[in-house]
Amino acid sequence: MKKFTKLCGTWSLNVISNGRLPLEEFAVKMGRIAPYVDYVHIREKKCTAKEIVAGVRKLVSEGVPRSKIIINDRVDVAVVEKTYGVQLAHHSLDIRAVKHSFPQLKVGKSVHSAEEAQEAEKQGADYLLYGHIYETASKADLPAKGLENLKCVTSSVTIPVIAIGGIKPEHVVPVIQAGASGIAVMSSVGEAADPLSVIQSYREMEGSEWLSK
Amino acid sequence: MKKFTKLCGTWSLNVISNGRLPLEEFAVKMGRIAPYVDYVHIREKKCTAKEIVAGVRKLVSEGVPRSKIIINDRVDVAVVEKTYGVQLAHHSLDIRAVKHSFPQLKVGKSVHSAEEAQEAEKQGADYLLYGHIYETASKADLPAKGLENLKCVTSSVTIPVIAIGGIKPEHVVPVIQAGASGIAVMSSVGEAADPLSVIQSYREMEGSEWLSK
Repeated sequence: MKKFTKLCGTWSLNVISNGRLPLEEFAVKMGRIAPYVDYVHIREKKCTAKEIVAGVRKLVSEGVPRSKIIINDRVDVAVVEKTYGVQLAHHSLDIRAVKHSFPQLKVGKSVHSAEEAQEAEKQGADYLLYGHIYETASKADLPAKGLENLKCVTSSVTIPVIAIGGIKPEHVVPVIQAGASGIAVMSSVGEAADPLSVIQSYREMEGSEWLSK
Repeated sequence: MKKFTKLCGTWSLNVISNGRLPLEEFAVKMGRIAPYVDYVHIREKKCTAKEIVAGVRKLVSEGVPRSKIIINDRVDVAVVEKTYGVQLAHHSLDIRAVKHSFPQLKVGKSVHSAEEAQEAEKQGADYLLYGHIYETASKADLPAKGLENLKCVTSSVTIPVIAIGGIKPEHVVPVIQAGASGIAVMSSVGEAADPLSVIQSYREMEGSEWLSK
């Protein structure tokens, strides 16, 4: 438990909004856990640019620095609001085009295979989000990728791979052992009544024997 | 009719995609009328960034120059694709923020009153889109603004005001007389079997007695 005072650790912890919780509420929760989280992603497919801007400003006012904020898809919002970066999906702008026009932005790409991962690295992505690793209600119709596929992806690129999808605290060690540089969680933190204790349960893994080596 | 050979004229003709016609088809139609149109707007609220990019490239391949293309809301697509400008709505990024981060872009703002028009000019908008002037099926639940309100708006700002909404060829003269710098049309051109003859019927107004003065 004392390891929790270490704040951000050897692997990165990403929290992603889930499109259900109002951004206002999400921001309040994120403010409470900001010191223990590496990145907070706004991923709200139904929100307008103006609403996402309001979400960023609320996060900042709650104590989440812009250097920890990542915007899904809306590159323009990320640039205007000077956030850390942008997370691109298959339906987003090209990585290369974004890096060319906005070199100041870190660019993450969501990938679903080693081929996509290699292509994204080639195009200049700064990091990847890969999943879903474990079964999760939000992707109930698709089979989980599992640790073997994660290993395949992490070993096929040199940029950091963040694992996402059904990751519980007890999964942190195997996921990091599989080569991931961090994890991303959605509902488990965003919708928790006490997000701090949830984050704590993930961060406790920081002190596990394997990760201390 | 001979005035039609004059190509773009003393007032600007804007054609806006309507969100129903596939962008691919829209682009083919726009290619046929490009020389007679000042600006082609991609306004596709349900399209992804990648789809809008594909729409821009299709327009370009059909002969519409980037200097005539305006993107609705997605500032990032406009920047990456080097289009003439972006059209902002109430739910979009702030004009001032866009002008600050992307000074190379022309910024239009959609307004619905003289107060909004003045505010948009103050924030740095390059031009305004104001409507709907006449009754139109796409805004059946809202009363038309009419020419008096249009006059009020055009006289309250110094930047160009483009009139939109139910504008038929016979409305061009009164709308320009009311101070508009141009008109915007959606379905009447986009969905016409012969968009060239529709455009022609608008451009013929170029030669009307009043406009020749």
